[in-house]
Amino acid sequence: MVILVLNCGSSSIKYQIMKMENVESSTLLAKGIVERIGLTEGVITHKPSGRESYSAVQPIPDHTVGINLILSALVHPEHGVIASLDEVSAVGHRVVHGGEYFMESALVDNNVKAAIEKCVELAPLHNPANLQGILSMEALLPKAPQVAVFDTSFHQTMPKHVYLYAIPYRYYEKYHIRRYGFHGTSHRYVAQKACKILGLDFGAVNIVTCHLGNGASIASIKQGKSCDTSMGFTPVDGLIMGTRSGAIDPGVLFYIADKEHLNHNDLNDLINKQGGIYGVSGLSSDMRDLEQAARSGNEMAQLAHDMFVYRVRKFIGSHVAAMGKVDLIVFTGGVGENDDLVRTGVCSNLDYLGVEFDCEANKGARGKDVLISKPASKVKIMVATTNEELVIAMDTMNIVGKLKQS
Amino acid sequence: MVILVLNCGSSSIKYQIMKMENVESSTLLAKGIVERIGLTEGVITHKPSGRESYSAVQPIPDHTVGINLILSALVHPEHGVIASLDEVSAVGHRVVHGGEYFMESALVDNNVKAAIEKCVELAPLHNPANLQGILSMEALLPKAPQVAVFDTSFHQTMPKHVYLYAIPYRYYEKYHIRRYGFHGTSHRYVAQKACKILGLDFGAVNIVTCHLGNGASIASIKQGKSCDTSMGFTPVDGLIMGTRSGAIDPGVLFYIADKEHLNHNDLNDLINKQGGIYGVSGLSSDMRDLEQAARSGNEMAQLAHDMFVYRVRKFIGSHVAAMGKVDLIVFTGGVGENDDLVRTGVCSNLDYLGVEFDCEANKGARGKDVLISKPASKVKIMVATTNEELVIAMDTMNIVGKLKQS
Repeated sequence: MVILVLNCGSSSIKYQIMKMENVESSTLLAKGIVERIGLTEGVITHKPSGRESYSAVQPIPDHTVGINLILSALVHPEHGVIASLDEVSAVGHRVVHGGEYFMESALVDNNVKAAIEKCVELAPLHNPANLQGILSMEALLPKAPQVAVFDTSFHQTMPKHVYLYAIPYRYYEKYHIRRYGFHGTSHRYVAQKACKILGLDFGAVNIVTCHLGNGASIASIKQGKSCDTSMGFTPVDGLIMGTRSGAIDPGVLFYIADKEHLNHNDLNDLINKQGGIYGVSGLSSDMRDLEQAARSGNEMAQLAHDMFVYRVRKFIGSHVAAMGKVDLIVFTGGVGENDDLVRTGVCSNLDYLGVEFDCEANKGARGKDVLISKPASKVKIMVATTNEELVIAMDTMNIVGKLKQS
Repeated sequence: MVILVLNCGSSSIKYQIMKMENVESSTLLAKGIVERIGLTEGVITHKPSGRESYSAVQPIPDHTVGINLILSALVHPEHGVIASLDEVSAVGHRVVHGGEYFMESALVDNNVKAAIEKCVELAPLHNPANLQGILSMEALLPKAPQVAVFDTSFHQTMPKHVYLYAIPYRYYEKYHIRRYGFHGTSHRYVAQKACKILGLDFGAVNIVTCHLGNGASIASIKQGKSCDTSMGFTPVDGLIMGTRSGAIDPGVLFYIADKEHLNHNDLNDLINKQGGIYGVSGLSSDMRDLEQAARSGNEMAQLAHDMFVYRVRKFIGSHVAAMGKVDLIVFTGGVGENDDLVRTGVCSNLDYLGVEFDCEANKGARGKDVLISKPASKVKIMVATTNEELVIAMDTMNIVGKLKQS
């Protein structure tokens, strides 16, 4: 079964096309990105697996044109990876916000499209583009069923006392203001993968997953269900990130606004784009840059690094306390998979949890699935690579497979 | 040594007068409150220990008049507790904000007054009244040395990676925006008291103190020093409180502001006065009311209770992770000292920390110092009553005592 996975942003479309044998086995045929949609010079970069990538520049006025370019690339005589578009069995879409409508991935129909539309208010930068991608694809590939996979749906199992904010309840009733959480596909995938590798029963153990990248969040997964996560109503909450402040006393923002005459857009920009390790260090939002600078004696880089690590450590502690115990801690995402210094800072001296950290294994763990706790450690710690596109493809395969059976 | 303790608010002055034999032994002579300062009908309520209290209504245009009333009450022929004001050896003042100027309590001189003045921007509702109290007392009782005891100073030992927010560093340099924390006198007092009762070395153990009242905060105390606390730049951060939201995704506030056209004052009001267990329940900011309502089946009251408990539990977990281990957890404040249901919710199922909770001892613990972990529990849990006025009196005695020695 060949599945096309789309991640439509406001001015770009990322895609992967995969051949799925079964849940266990998949082959990436090609991936690529369409960028600068709506600008005079759009560009598509297409990379067939094992062959050279190519780029083409041309006007890409809207998402439909962009998706058409992708489809042409897939069947291109020279760079293509399938003979005919009829080979595409289904299309899976990343959709950022599913609100309270979606507990899991969904086969796209009119109701699903209407619900995604209703969630536009909750994710005004993302859901319109996600929906546009679905509509464009319906027009261009009408025979292929489409599946929507939501960043939020895995966390819909959080109980009410976890997802509510301590503000007047009417704001939840009227505007659906609550904690939703994001990165759900990643948290679910790496938790399941780590359990499988370690021979643990996903439905029986307590897991804390740390997705640490430019965006970063932590989730508690108890007996297979997300029961808490660090991102909230928006993806700015929780951990310190590349350019995002993470949790911050709102009083700080009102104070700055008064002093510098900032409006809400300015403040949003401040905590989303000017904060995080970039804001503290004044140097970079990339942890690799900070670690290199810190080695050369840059104290602000070291400070930003320490703040990032300290916050992750505290959130792990809070999530473990919430669950009452932990069996497995998983690191993923660009920083989580590759940065042994961050993992050392987070995991050292967690003996009280039953962690025996394996410093040597940790040093060697980079971009692959590795156990970084000692064999006897009561609590297992794993690095596990994430693959959100693969989750989308698997969910799409499963849902379309059921469709064909029925 | 007779010490007068003043807690000056913008329109009220609370006071206690104590006879201090030594650090171990003190006797409360009288306490009282002056209210409605600046309004047409002010009132003083004076309560001599062991005798009936009395009230008097009269205009109290400013703090000097209010303090004069207090001094008159202290030497009043019928209600008084000392023969002459000359008996007052020193005056201790609660001062909310000491900024980065004060690591500990300070003998008031011109530099101290100037520093308190500089912190007015950080605590515009409190520091002006605190300073006014000092100035009025200097005028009325010029011979008595005065000591300022700060809510913030105990937390000045927090390291930089703990107290900074992940926003551009210039805001710290320019406006001193950082986490300060509050309730410092209470955290310090109950931690020291609990150690003393349990025979633990305050300078050697790791403690988490939970001050849970209408305002609520948690502190980590490592080897006698505060190394983290849940309140931040303002007292709205961290735990869910009576009417305060505690930590909240700032994105929530921008969203509500857009929808309901609220300005920063409205939003500040929302998270400080309309939130917390009051906002969620729509019923009361008093946990006793919620628990009674919950027993009668009020689901919103139960929900608010559960949210409060869950947040405390998570913060304890995060603080323990930050320190790497905990030896002692202390509960204090109106809720912490009296509410066994809250403590049960917070402490049950913390076996992973080495806690053996004593349900029976917990049920009986109300407003007194009681161990509520089992004797064999690796981590001790105590209820300890707080007494911020006594801390102020003790600090005042110690500082003035040193003054007399030198």
